[in-house]
Amino acid sequence: MTMRWSNWDRTDLAVERAAMVRERTGEVPGLESSQEHINGIEITRVQVSTPYAANQVGKPPGRYFTLECPELKYRNRTLLKNVAQIIARELSELAGLPKQNDVLIVGLGNWQATPDALGPRVVSQLMVTRHIREYISQDLGQRLYPVAAVSPGVLGITGMETVDIVKGIADQIKPELIITVDALAARSPSRLFSTIQIADTGIQPGSGVGNKRPGLNRESLGVPVVAIGVPTVVSGASIAIDVLTDYFSKFNPHARPTLGSVQEFLSEDLMDLLVTHKDVDMQILEMSKLLASAINKASQPAISEDEMLDYLQ
Amino acid sequence: MTMRWSNWDRTDLAVERAAMVRERTGEVPGLESSQEHINGIEITRVQVSTPYAANQVGKPPGRYFTLECPELKYRNRTLLKNVAQIIARELSELAGLPKQNDVLIVGLGNWQATPDALGPRVVSQLMVTRHIREYISQDLGQRLYPVAAVSPGVLGITGMETVDIVKGIADQIKPELIITVDALAARSPSRLFSTIQIADTGIQPGSGVGNKRPGLNRESLGVPVVAIGVPTVVSGASIAIDVLTDYFSKFNPHARPTLGSVQEFLSEDLMDLLVTHKDVDMQILEMSKLLASAINKASQPAISEDEMLDYLQ
Amino acid sequence: MTMRWSNWDRTDLAVERAAMVRERTGEVPGLESSQEHINGIEITRVQVSTPYAANQVGKPPGRYFTLECPELKYRNRTLLKNVAQIIARELSELAGLPKQNDVLIVGLGNWQATPDALGPRVVSQLMVTRHIREYISQDLGQRLYPVAAVSPGVLGITGMETVDIVKGIADQIKPELIITVDALAARSPSRLFSTIQIADTGIQPGSGVGNKRPGLNRESLGVPVVAIGVPTVVSGASIAIDVLTDYFSKFNPHARPTLGSVQEFLSEDLMDLLVTHKDVDMQILEMSKLLASAINKASQPAISEDEMLDYLQ
Amino acid sequence: MTMRWSNWDRTDLAVERAAMVRERTGEVPGLESSQEHINGIEITRVQVSTPYAANQVGKPPGRYFTLECPELKYRNRTLLKNVAQIIARELSELAGLPKQNDVLIVGLGNWQATPDALGPRVVSQLMVTRHIREYISQDLGQRLYPVAAVSPGVLGITGMETVDIVKGIADQIKPELIITVDALAARSPSRLFSTIQIADTGIQPGSGVGNKRPGLNRESLGVPVVAIGVPTVVSGASIAIDVLTDYFSKFNPHARPTLGSVQEFLSEDLMDLLVTHKDVDMQILEMSKLLASAINKASQPAISEDEMLDYLQ
Repeated sequence: MTMRWSNWDRTDLAVERAAMVRERTGEVPGLESSQEHINGIEITRVQVSTPYAANQVGKPPGRYFTLECPELKYRNRTLLKNVAQIIARELSELAGLPKQNDVLIVGLGNWQATPDALGPRVVSQLMVTRHIREYISQDLGQRLYPVAAVSPGVLGITGMETVDIVKGIADQIKPELIITVDALAARSPSRLFSTIQIADTGIQPGSGVGNKRPGLNRESLGVPVVAIGVPTVVSGASIAIDVLTDYFSKFNPHARPTLGSVQEFLSEDLMDLLVTHKDVDMQILEMSKLLASAINKASQPAISEDEMLDYLQ
Repeated sequence: MTMRWSNWDRTDLAVERAAMVRERTGEVPGLESSQEHINGIEITRVQVSTPYAANQVGKPPGRYFTLECPELKYRNRTLLKNVAQIIARELSELAGLPKQNDVLIVGLGNWQATPDALGPRVVSQLMVTRHIREYISQDLGQRLYPVAAVSPGVLGITGMETVDIVKGIADQIKPELIITVDALAARSPSRLFSTIQIADTGIQPGSGVGNKRPGLNRESLGVPVVAIGVPTVVSGASIAIDVLTDYFSKFNPHARPTLGSVQEFLSEDLMDLLVTHKDVDMQILEMSKLLASAINKASQPAISEDEMLDYLQ
Repeated sequence: MTMRWSNWDRTDLAVERAAMVRERTGEVPGLESSQEHINGIEITRVQVSTPYAANQVGKPPGRYFTLECPELKYRNRTLLKNVAQIIARELSELAGLPKQNDVLIVGLGNWQATPDALGPRVVSQLMVTRHIREYISQDLGQRLYPVAAVSPGVLGITGMETVDIVKGIADQIKPELIITVDALAARSPSRLFSTIQIADTGIQPGSGVGNKRPGLNRESLGVPVVAIGVPTVVSGASIAIDVLTDYFSKFNPHARPTLGSVQEFLSEDLMDLLVTHKDVDMQILEMSKLLASAINKASQPAISEDEMLDYLQ
Repeated sequence: MTMRWSNWDRTDLAVERAAMVRERTGEVPGLESSQEHINGIEITRVQVSTPYAANQVGKPPGRYFTLECPELKYRNRTLLKNVAQIIARELSELAGLPKQNDVLIVGLGNWQATPDALGPRVVSQLMVTRHIREYISQDLGQRLYPVAAVSPGVLGITGMETVDIVKGIADQIKPELIITVDALAARSPSRLFSTIQIADTGIQPGSGVGNKRPGLNRESLGVPVVAIGVPTVVSGASIAIDVLTDYFSKFNPHARPTLGSVQEFLSEDLMDLLVTHKDVDMQILEMSKLLASAINKASQPAISEDEMLDYLQ
């Protein structure tokens, strides 16, 4: 996540961008969505099939899976387990886990900035196995799939584009698949820590018009890249727009201001702000456990939960 | 700071509450303010003299010093030094530092929750001397004033009201003065990490109507209590109100909504949100250095900056 | 734990001190020990009954329970669970848990110094309930026993004797029992992270001849104090003595040097050293989980493991 | 640093290995040393010129600079500044800093294991500039030299050999020079946090006979590699040997045991132990500041100390 808001409607969620473009222009050819509900969990699949649709939505062509579950932030253990199971299954389908050859998990973001630390936190809880298969008992070794993991840091700390670091590592170890994990920005605060997105398109750092920074995707890295992300922040400007929109919708729908007039008065100060959950430290910790558990399940299907706990201790 | 917003206009800043009450009802007898500007730094002194004014403002009678400096968050070193100097001077005047007998500094808040960790962070950088005066060189020992410090934790972690812990400690060591340091909530996001408040009234945890939790003040602790605080968060609801107010002020002053109509549509979700600076980890760190430096200067006037750096290393 | 070695044979373990005194002087009236073995776990109970024995052993009269399990540091989950169960049972017997009135758990040590952070780590994982019994569902509330917890810091950071802080808090909340948790020093490196001591005598900070710092015990705090501790360090001098003793025992038993001659050549430098496990960070983390789990079990016998996990998340 | 002791005399310091080989076999052709003393600071330069000498010393041919200063661990600020200055000068001479093209600083070790966290700690305090030269004021931009930095983690956490990660990154950004920073093991406890080694040979992870893990050096990475390291641990076995050696030297020089007989009785347990300074957390922090300051000075000679402090804040 690059925490700099270039535009008011910054969101990394395809599901939100698809809704925005539909609201603006109606149905878009090449943009398809479907929904499914399971016990308070809503799953949306967005498919962007054409360059035209990609341009309208502002996201590259590909498949975007979104799980939404408002109860998630209350951290009920049974619910967390169900959600981890669904995410694991989706990783099997969308990413084809497990792989016979190396999978590289990349924890994006800055572990010294709380709302941006999700990726590195997940990496620190993964079952990393690439280096041990030959050293452990034959029985266990044969059931293990090779996983490597790295938290490359962020541009401001390394002086290097993340894609360069990951490309370099990928060229060395030649993984069959790369999975990135990142904190995202959403448009709507109701998404915070309650939505999980998986995309087979990789990830575009600081996405948005005019941003020329290279993405982490099959094109740049040479292998399939699946991106998992969870919104941890909303921009101050998003909140402002929401409030005005809601207000006029309710009290004076005909006088609803144009986006232009709204943006005009949004102060520069709002750009330096972020909106997050009041328990952001705890939410990041819990979500990192959930994602690590889902990735571990998906990448090591032959390892029982008990064996995994033993290993990870 | 208790991060639970009982009401939309939650603020711990007397200067904001005084402005709000004046806007609502005009001048209030027993409420006086004065301002001063020094090189881009604005200093406001609010005095609440009567029970009536206290009731209107929602803050106990006493003196409230507020330093505001929007540039503070850019962390220019010269500016930081100037501000530390001003805060140190005010601590001398308002708190009568240095004291001949023990001063107890209390770092309020939860060190495991980033936006609430300011107090414990300050405490970890203080020059704590109460226990060493007799053990060090006579020259230095004679110039040291006795300072103790503690970070008592928060109710959710200790199971005890903070005031009980601090009262217990104060009864044991009988300090001449208690200084609390805490992260505050503000109404306006422009205040975040750019305002420092010092009050000779102590502090009311989770202040606001209906809150019966006991404060940390002379009444409860038996010694004078000076409270230093810096806003690190704004409630989501505050942002919402601000945006609407600003919008109508600019485009349609006559249709400005009543507070009632605004509150009506603010969603419950906004209550779980907080707004903070996008570099909140870094801002907390830098502000803690500034406050620790100011408290150290004020409590140890006979120690040179070099000696202090040597000690603290 | 105070990490300053006043003498070469520093140990906080009664079981080691009893062995040393017996080696020196044979059986001591008023000093009794018994042993028990369960599945690779060795339990020793030492009872110091008379002032004479206390003086010889260098520990106050009382009961000392010691669990030793060399496999513990390999962190097998089943073993960890068994050990937690034994510790919980012993806390019920020695400390009479659960209590109807408040129990105060005190995490001694410095959370910023890895080998000394055990106590604060345990506290951060406890089920603290004193403040919530009235706010939660009646069913759960009635089954909860009241627990409070605090990590008071160390003298060098607070400027106050820990006993003063704890005494102050105890005077306010009047607990029925205090349990302290602390990192200990052992004589033998084989004890590191593999021994757990529980004593109904409280704890003597930086114990040893000539140390006049007040202990945390029934005498100073006015309520029973049970102390749990785990060795996390051994002094450099201890290692030196061990090596020499072992060497001469094996190769030249008759030339075994006197203690005097050994101490004579131990360099001052050895005093600044500590010996610990090479995975000290991980060992502290795992041991803190074990102790927190045992204390939670013992203090909340009516809460199922699942409910506890839900609560603690 | 790989914290696994394959042999009793494990040390990463060339100066210690040179002394050991000389003690064993006398002068070695191709092994030269010189010493210099400046105000309580001892500087030793060891040059290994021939394959024979390299084999004897167990270190690759090259130049090894060692600064030793027992007072360093007391953290006197003036002394720290002098030492940083000397290290900076040596980096200019040995590494040819500043470079016109990219310099890549690599913080080796595990930031979650206190005694091994030195490298990552240094990296987090570096002046990283590679990405900003074009975005900042022309004046400053022209005076900045390009520095990048990364903390790649350790094999146990990433599943990848560190050399693979660094090689991959180096292939991408093609630095002119790589500087590694690492925590080392020493033979003598007096070296802990008081010795700094700079070698133009790069670094051999877990060096020692029989270790086939690839080093980080010009051969593997394709560019010059300068390695900075500071001893943070000594093996338990080293202490044992020292004690015996010292004892016999003093009391019975003629009966001094052979190495064989000593090793015979060293217990396996000693292998899991490490010896470090009792304030290891603080020592790591202070040493990381010193090294970061020295690297910053050497790589940015045109930036004043004040500008650097402004930047780093």
